[in-house]
Amino acid sequence: YNVSVFYPLTFLRLSVVSPAERIRFILGEEDDGPPPPQLFTELDELLAVDGHEMEWKETARWIKFEEKVEKGGERWSKPHVATLSLHSLMELKRCIEKGTIMLDLEASSLQQVVEIITDNQIETGQLNRDLREKVMYTLLRKHRHQTKKSNLRSLADIGKSVSSASRLFSNQENGSPTTAHRNFTSNSLNDFSDKPEKDQLRNKFMKKLPRDAEASNVLVGEVDFLETSFVAFVRLQQAVMLGALTEVPVPTRFLFVLLGPKGKAKSYREIGRAIATLMSDEVFHDIAYKAKDRQDLLAGIEEFLEEVIVLPPGEWDPNIRIEPPKTLPSPDKRKNMYAGLEAPQMNGDAPHDDGGGGGHQVGEELQRTKRFCGGLVLDIKRKLPFFASDFYDALHIQSLSAILFIYLGTVTNAITFGGLLGDATENMQGVLESFLGTALTGAVFCLLAGQPLTILSSTGPVLVFERLLFNFSKDNDFNYLEFRLWIGLWSAFLCLVLVATDASFLVQYFTRFTEEGFSALISFIFIYDAFKKMIKLAHHDPINSDYDPNLITQYDCRCLPGTIRTVFTNPVNATWASLTRQQCVTYGGELVGEACGYVPDIALMSLILFFGTYICSMALKKFKTSRFFPTKVRKLISDFAIILTILLFCGVDALVGVETPKLIVPSEFKPTSPLRGWFVPPFGGNPWWVYLAALLPALLVTILIFMDQQITAVIVNRKEHKLKKGAGYHLDLFWVAILMIVCSFMGLPWYVAATVISIAHIDSLKMETETSAPGEQPKFLGVREQRVTGIFVFLLTGLSVFMAPILKFIPMPVLYGVFLYMGVASLNGVQFMDRLMLLLMPAKHQPDLIYLRHVPQRRIHLFTFLQVVCLALLWILKSTVAAIIFPVMILALVAVRKAMDYVFSQHDLGYLDDVIPEKDKKKKEDEKKKKHKKKGSIDSEMEFSEYPYHDNVPSIKISMETMEHEPMLGNKSEDSEYEK
Amino acid sequence: YNVSVFYPLTFLRLSVVSPAERIRFILGEEDDGPPPPQLFTELDELLAVDGHEMEWKETARWIKFEEKVEKGGERWSKPHVATLSLHSLMELKRCIEKGTIMLDLEASSLQQVVEIITDNQIETGQLNRDLREKVMYTLLRKHRHQTKKSNLRSLADIGKSVSSASRLFSNQENGSPTTAHRNFTSNSLNDFSDKPEKDQLRNKFMKKLPRDAEASNVLVGEVDFLETSFVAFVRLQQAVMLGALTEVPVPTRFLFVLLGPKGKAKSYREIGRAIATLMSDEVFHDIAYKAKDRQDLLAGIEEFLEEVIVLPPGEWDPNIRIEPPKTLPSPDKRKNMYAGLEAPQMNGDAPHDDGGGGGHQVGEELQRTKRFCGGLVLDIKRKLPFFASDFYDALHIQSLSAILFIYLGTVTNAITFGGLLGDATENMQGVLESFLGTALTGAVFCLLAGQPLTILSSTGPVLVFERLLFNFSKDNDFNYLEFRLWIGLWSAFLCLVLVATDASFLVQYFTRFTEEGFSALISFIFIYDAFKKMIKLAHHDPINSDYDPNLITQYDCRCLPGTIRTVFTNPVNATWASLTRQQCVTYGGELVGEACGYVPDIALMSLILFFGTYICSMALKKFKTSRFFPTKVRKLISDFAIILTILLFCGVDALVGVETPKLIVPSEFKPTSPLRGWFVPPFGGNPWWVYLAALLPALLVTILIFMDQQITAVIVNRKEHKLKKGAGYHLDLFWVAILMIVCSFMGLPWYVAATVISIAHIDSLKMETETSAPGEQPKFLGVREQRVTGIFVFLLTGLSVFMAPILKFIPMPVLYGVFLYMGVASLNGVQFMDRLMLLLMPAKHQPDLIYLRHVPQRRIHLFTFLQVVCLALLWILKSTVAAIIFPVMILALVAVRKAMDYVFSQHDLGYLDDVIPEKDKKKKEDEKKKKHKKKGSIDSEMEFSEYPYHDNVPSIKISMETMEHEPMLGNKSEDSEYEK
Repeated sequence: YNVSVFYPLTFLRLSVVSPAERIRFILGEEDDGPPPPQLFTELDELLAVDGHEMEWKETARWIKFEEKVEKGGERWSKPHVATLSLHSLMELKRCIEKGTIMLDLEASSLQQVVEIITDNQIETGQLNRDLREKVMYTLLRKHRHQTKKSNLRSLADIGKSVSSASRLFSNQENGSPTTAHRNFTSNSLNDFSDKPEKDQLRNKFMKKLPRDAEASNVLVGEVDFLETSFVAFVRLQQAVMLGALTEVPVPTRFLFVLLGPKGKAKSYREIGRAIATLMSDEVFHDIAYKAKDRQDLLAGIEEFLEEVIVLPPGEWDPNIRIEPPKTLPSPDKRKNMYAGLEAPQMNGDAPHDDGGGGGHQVGEELQRTKRFCGGLVLDIKRKLPFFASDFYDALHIQSLSAILFIYLGTVTNAITFGGLLGDATENMQGVLESFLGTALTGAVFCLLAGQPLTILSSTGPVLVFERLLFNFSKDNDFNYLEFRLWIGLWSAFLCLVLVATDASFLVQYFTRFTEEGFSALISFIFIYDAFKKMIKLAHHDPINSDYDPNLITQYDCRCLPGTIRTVFTNPVNATWASLTRQQCVTYGGELVGEACGYVPDIALMSLILFFGTYICSMALKKFKTSRFFPTKVRKLISDFAIILTILLFCGVDALVGVETPKLIVPSEFKPTSPLRGWFVPPFGGNPWWVYLAALLPALLVTILIFMDQQITAVIVNRKEHKLKKGAGYHLDLFWVAILMIVCSFMGLPWYVAATVISIAHIDSLKMETETSAPGEQPKFLGVREQRVTGIFVFLLTGLSVFMAPILKFIPMPVLYGVFLYMGVASLNGVQFMDRLMLLLMPAKHQPDLIYLRHVPQRRIHLFTFLQVVCLALLWILKSTVAAIIFPVMILALVAVRKAMDYVFSQHDLGYLDDVIPEKDKKKKEDEKKKKHKKKGSIDSEMEFSEYPYHDNVPSIKISMETMEHEPMLGNKSEDSEYEK
Repeated sequence: YNVSVFYPLTFLRLSVVSPAERIRFILGEEDDGPPPPQLFTELDELLAVDGHEMEWKETARWIKFEEKVEKGGERWSKPHVATLSLHSLMELKRCIEKGTIMLDLEASSLQQVVEIITDNQIETGQLNRDLREKVMYTLLRKHRHQTKKSNLRSLADIGKSVSSASRLFSNQENGSPTTAHRNFTSNSLNDFSDKPEKDQLRNKFMKKLPRDAEASNVLVGEVDFLETSFVAFVRLQQAVMLGALTEVPVPTRFLFVLLGPKGKAKSYREIGRAIATLMSDEVFHDIAYKAKDRQDLLAGIEEFLEEVIVLPPGEWDPNIRIEPPKTLPSPDKRKNMYAGLEAPQMNGDAPHDDGGGGGHQVGEELQRTKRFCGGLVLDIKRKLPFFASDFYDALHIQSLSAILFIYLGTVTNAITFGGLLGDATENMQGVLESFLGTALTGAVFCLLAGQPLTILSSTGPVLVFERLLFNFSKDNDFNYLEFRLWIGLWSAFLCLVLVATDASFLVQYFTRFTEEGFSALISFIFIYDAFKKMIKLAHHDPINSDYDPNLITQYDCRCLPGTIRTVFTNPVNATWASLTRQQCVTYGGELVGEACGYVPDIALMSLILFFGTYICSMALKKFKTSRFFPTKVRKLISDFAIILTILLFCGVDALVGVETPKLIVPSEFKPTSPLRGWFVPPFGGNPWWVYLAALLPALLVTILIFMDQQITAVIVNRKEHKLKKGAGYHLDLFWVAILMIVCSFMGLPWYVAATVISIAHIDSLKMETETSAPGEQPKFLGVREQRVTGIFVFLLTGLSVFMAPILKFIPMPVLYGVFLYMGVASLNGVQFMDRLMLLLMPAKHQPDLIYLRHVPQRRIHLFTFLQVVCLALLWILKSTVAAIIFPVMILALVAVRKAMDYVFSQHDLGYLDDVIPEKDKKKKEDEKKKKHKKKGSIDSEMEFSEYPYHDNVPSIKISMETMEHEPMLGNKSEDSEYEK
């Protein structure tokens, strides 16, 4: 066998080369092959189990973070950051300095490896020849691995324990060590085969490792026959399966052995932990693979020590396990430092790494072409080549679950918006219209639009507009549907003009300020409306607060012959009393009695249903971050939160049986209102000038549609979603306009992109790295971009029209509760709300937000204050006659934002908002000048990069998204407090 | 001036002494004087502000943890653990090796110090003489400190900003740097006076420092005239006020100066942070005070490095600020290591430190005297000397707030228990009796008992017993009050026998298993009863679920002449219809009509009040851990949660006006029930044998009283409360017995110690260190032990009897809601509940509890399972005829626990429960044997001490206590997850 350690080159640079240069040399080498494979590191200690002979027992393992075998828990600890002592690292360095180092050893079995290193130690005089057998015997002892048991199996064990316990109980023995080692898997190493053993293959941990992973085994232990320590570090030429040496059936590439005299087991373990931690360090890992000699390894340790983070002993308890942070600095930075790509930097001064960005880096999709329909043509050209792949890319099981999830969301939306729309328009547009419109427009859009990930839906602003429009029509005796048709036609025309002129490039001016102002206002309207509805309901069915059960005999409501109008058909006098309320009123009777004005129970029951729905849906949505049940179950409950809540409270309502107001759904497939058909005739309902006058509201609708559609489109197309097939702003708007014409003619609601549900769609289609080390956050790869999920969702929605007979069991208060939930949930995570809350927080309790670190508090409060003033003005406007010009005023937010450039410095705006495009360039110049002028000033001195305009947080965080977050294993982990 | 650096002795041991020995020498020196004072460390950097001349700007400060000045936020960061780079520590070491070290310099002004160190550098040839003026000029530049502004002032600033903004707006300027440096306080250093400046004195941060604190100033900066670095470390002979050098008016003792050539400002800052962190390290701090030369300081750095905790660079982002941990390893351990008191230990292997203990370390109070009344006599002897101080110790403002808080708790308890008791005994004991009894017994007990911190109250078990007793009396036609009097007399007698025989020593057998079983059962009964009451109420006032508003004309309930019994006085026929419900029934009329069986609104309103009260009190109680409002406001809201909730929902009830069932309180000062007086005659109500038969239930009551009283007493007297005046178990029980006799004769409820409210009492009287470093947990000093608060609380409660007219506005559902809250809240933090929840959690989501680390999961589940079986049996028992022997069965828990010794190993029980006294000794022997037998085995090898029987968590954690916890500044900090 070949023990190749010294190359001539190595020999030459032995004393002249500094560790940093050495590493630069190692890491800078030209890579021919693939990068070194992932390493699985296992720490085995030599221990006597139950007074039997010594065995190697697995006590910890690493992929990226450390997992320990709990002392008595017979379980794996949570993955945590390995805290080491500097002392153990120094001792490790000494071990590498003095021990046997064998790089690229050729061996095919553990026996062989052990023989070689033992002989090497004897040759170099570090080991007495007499001890050869003993050392070899020790190193070839059995290995016991810690295997994980499912919760179910351990529950089953209880039964066994109970019975064994009762046996023990009668035995009158103290303690019960008999069952103590049940879940160790022990392997005889005497016939060490190359084939992986059954326990190894069964190990589910294998899923966490990529296929080409290799193992590094660390063996440490104290023995009584040695007087000096026996240290060996081996890298095999080829990774070899060394039988049951490793917990998982992965071939071993590295082997670190430390045997030493009795009495220092703890110290040995710490050294073992140190080398294992080093092996799981991404930079040392590369060095270990590429090292040519001992000095290279030592240089690797030096580099590690240089980069290490030190906690003062008086300020931290080493027993505390540190949870893995959510984001880690990229190891490439460290590697590049040595590859000469970047000047070495001090620890802690890393510029803000910002994978993904978010915000408004506007791509080529939004460049102005200055040609007629130029943008539209480019969109079609861009998307056409992907059209085929938009179908076969959907072939994945994930699409199925996405379809189901989004279908439920869409149906819920269709029901709730349909209900509210029916309410707002006196059923001129109702649930059935909502279903039909959703299905039709959604399916067409997903099939043909530029961004099929966008989901069309009724949205808040459109609902608000329809309400205003209907009231306006009623007040002025217009034919609502016809008026609306003309508005729709004009708007569609205007939208097409916008498409033709590439007007979507204006999207760049929508900053966070505008987006958040817009969405916050909509949320407030939702919340306000939900309460208003409830109050209206309570007024409709008032409760009798003076009711005295004792006076029940005095309460009644009788129908008496009317005194004022006795003109109508008089029913036979004898039956006046037998008439129902309605009949009584119809026949002109009079309702007399104390009970007449009141309706018992309904108001209170509605209140219970309303708040119950809200609280329950909130709780179920949050269930995802609880600790109970496996992640999948929790995700399921959380995803289906709203539908579950609706079902639950429909059940409660049915159980109590009180006659609460229900959703009105026609039992047949016909328009909800009997006053209309499926086609709205364009002429005849209104005077001729109304057709032209419709242009004015159409302008407003156009602005509304444009903003609603494009803000969502911007969010969907964010860089952080890593979309590969490009966006199609113009094409999207084109289809929205076309569908608007269709909807207007059919008297269906208008549809635009819905933010919340589109983001949910994207979230359900996210692709992540499948194997990630325990404790490591999986890496986001992109979104499964295709058209199939969307189309299926809307086909299913269309079929749901036949669900109408079931829908009529839904009480309205439940829907109002859902709307309250939607309003509150969509305020979650909006930076504006965060800043509002800061006003109530003492400075020391404020979370460690990035803008609090960089912008003075009073500037933040001023910004918030201005935003509040804007929204208050909009709110007042909405409540007055001017309500109909509401969309224009939202656009005014853009102007206010531009004016803010004069009040706030670009530095502050960079943190609190995005920067408006043309300012961007200007500001950079400003900064350059500024920097030049006052070098060494405060600003340029303090840590962190200067302007992380685009921190990782998307500028509008929508409820669904924030609630979708995978829970950290502990409580809310603290690192979310720090650095975003 | 005297620059004493080298002592002869130092010179001798220069080369022969290792760092560890050197430290042993420094720290081992006999201390004549007081320990070195607390240090405040400030890091000032040399920066140009706004292109003006260079100034020293404060950028960070330390007491124990680091606080940084945020870059643009003009605010202090939260205190955090200072993460250093190893590199900077090494550079610091080099600085100390080469720089000027002046120990015990005598100087009285900064000017003088600067002159000395500059001249020294020139003498040693490290500084060119030409640069003397420049260096001195730089070192004497102005110092700007970061001062904290109140939130109010910064809100006020908004107004100013708005106006200045509008001005700027018209000016059309970009950016607004004019307001940028408003809250720097700048001090001219040209006339450096010794008197502290105004800004210094006004600084509120001074409160965080003890009076004798000294400052250490770290000045680092880059200058363009130096080519090598200028380093000086100065310790002054006496701490001197160096004018406005320091943020706070504290005299300076240490000064570290580092000036260096341009371009390495970041590196200098890191070195400055390193020395500042060292100065705030408790061990290095001592060394710095005692060091005799440079080598001592270097040894100190070596020691620090040896103890340092290292995080691997690939597993942690140095930009994340680590929140200070809740508990820290004691620095004494490190010091003792060198003082030779303990062998040096590896990092991370520290035995479990366990300040305070908790649990059952039974003190001399519970030793058995084996003399008649021996314990009682000892108790009196122990407490008598403190009797006077029990009054003057109360002279503190804290007592006032404690009185108010506990008064509210007591009144709430009196109302709720009184209400329930009235309900259970058909008003034989009602709210008025409850008030009277509480006031009488409480005041007497607090005045004379052994442990005046204990608060007497009606408790759940007694309530349960009264309910059972009343039903038993009713079923057997006994005179309830007389029967109860005899039971009370017998029990009191038995209790006095227990007092005389020192039976309280049995308390030692109450382990966590018994305590938790007991309290969990009581909680379950509370919850169950609350719901049962509500269901009963709903049945009493059923709602009409078939009600149709349209058919209102058909609903009525008329009183018709009775058909069956027309015997009674017949009212005039014409007025049958005008009779009320009650009159109708009285006169034998018949109620006919669909409306008769139903009562509108009341059931639903009750439901709303019930759940509303529960949810609202939960939310308000948790408000303490929110981030909003200053801590004091939050504490207030949380403390008054229940009373606020009751008021709120009484208001809601009054507003809606529905006739919900209300608390029955007599409007005059007389017994609630008209059937009884204030004295219960002992004879005449029952047959003679009942007087003797009462002994049997009395036995049960005795057990109940004894357990209820003593379990609470054990919790109150826990070691962790650091009580100094000793307990008085026997004396307490004596007074409980005496008061029981009084209460029995007066027909008042029986009173025993109430756990929840007693703990709240203790919490409200806790004394803590007043000055604690930012980020550091204040140290608990003890409890203000006195009798005054208790006496006042009960006097006020007595006066509240006259509140009766107000109390009758409280709806019963609100009280049931409070009871639901109490039941649920007292389950919080009970380990048994935690373990129950573990059953539903996948292993990887389980919190990192200490017993999970040490006991196999299936043993934990088995333990939980057995506990559940016990409780289920008790519950079934409670629901059957055998209910009355319920207290005996609770005692059976003790026996079950003893039996468990045969099923579980003492190791496991040590973690899951406490260890029974006699087992304790045995077990330790077992362990010794075991250890001996298998040295080097798994158990003795793994980290942590073997048996932390008494982890820091008190064995019963009561809601109040867990909710009382001061919130960490961030979210729930992660360290609560780790190590208890």
